[in-house]
Amino acid sequence: MEVNEMAAEECKAVLEHASLGRLGCSYENQPYVVPIHFAYDGGYLYVFSTSGQKVKWMRANPKVCVQTDEAQNQSEWISVIVNGQYEELPGPQYTAERKHASSLLAKRSHWWLSALGERQMRVGDKLIEPLFFRIRIHSMSGLRFTDEKERRG
Amino acid sequence: MEVNEMAAEECKAVLEHASLGRLGCSYENQPYVVPIHFAYDGGYLYVFSTSGQKVKWMRANPKVCVQTDEAQNQSEWISVIVNGQYEELPGPQYTAERKHASSLLAKRSHWWLSALGERQMRVGDKLIEPLFFRIRIHSMSGLRFTDEKERRG
Repeated sequence: MEVNEMAAEECKAVLEHASLGRLGCSYENQPYVVPIHFAYDGGYLYVFSTSGQKVKWMRANPKVCVQTDEAQNQSEWISVIVNGQYEELPGPQYTAERKHASSLLAKRSHWWLSALGERQMRVGDKLIEPLFFRIRIHSMSGLRFTDEKERRG
Repeated sequence: MEVNEMAAEECKAVLEHASLGRLGCSYENQPYVVPIHFAYDGGYLYVFSTSGQKVKWMRANPKVCVQTDEAQNQSEWISVIVNGQYEELPGPQYTAERKHASSLLAKRSHWWLSALGERQMRVGDKLIEPLFFRIRIHSMSGLRFTDEKERRG
């Protein structure tokens, strides 16, 4: 197997059409990883979320990492990692950013995003409001894994 | 959308047949997330890996988190999170554990695992030896996401 670094432009192209990622946050050096749906606009990843442990932790430590990956074909597989900073987007002061995030996220249809679009979720017996945040991107990198045996034959 | 906690036995059943996960580690409160393939044996997750940033970080801070998820059907989606501790398995003192890990991992066939089975990878121009480690599981939890609209039809 061959592993090669991807150029920044290739990483951006992946983020532009990706929607599922895994968000890593950390509190007192205990990491925590959860799946998220995101939308990328060149500078930020926008996310709809429920509140809970990850939001508490990101408020305490805004350093985050988002990883997304995809199979390109039978012999190639890529993974992109973004490092950045958590920024919460509460209403009403972030109304413009929330609209921007909604419109970006709406382009990436997925059943649970449309469910989130209803603006209400039930966790156990509790109804909760989803929360908006974004990740200010500080750096990104990507790796391309190529199976040489598959490629040759 | 409805979100419900999974019982411990349900989480274990997911880990038993899962093979792809995302590993979160953390150094000086900067989280880092990478895809891994793992095999679960009841007490540990076993992993083949290349060395690199994640191994350096886990040697410095062995607290890790592994997340895995899967679509159960069109209206259900689950995510399981494991918290645990990094333990490296260098040869020859861990020969028995390495054999155990190999045999567990071999049952989960995937092109890049078989490539790793060749015991040699190329990163850029460098040939590297893969490394074995395991994660001692301290706790696990799981969430089941159900789209009520889909379920109702």
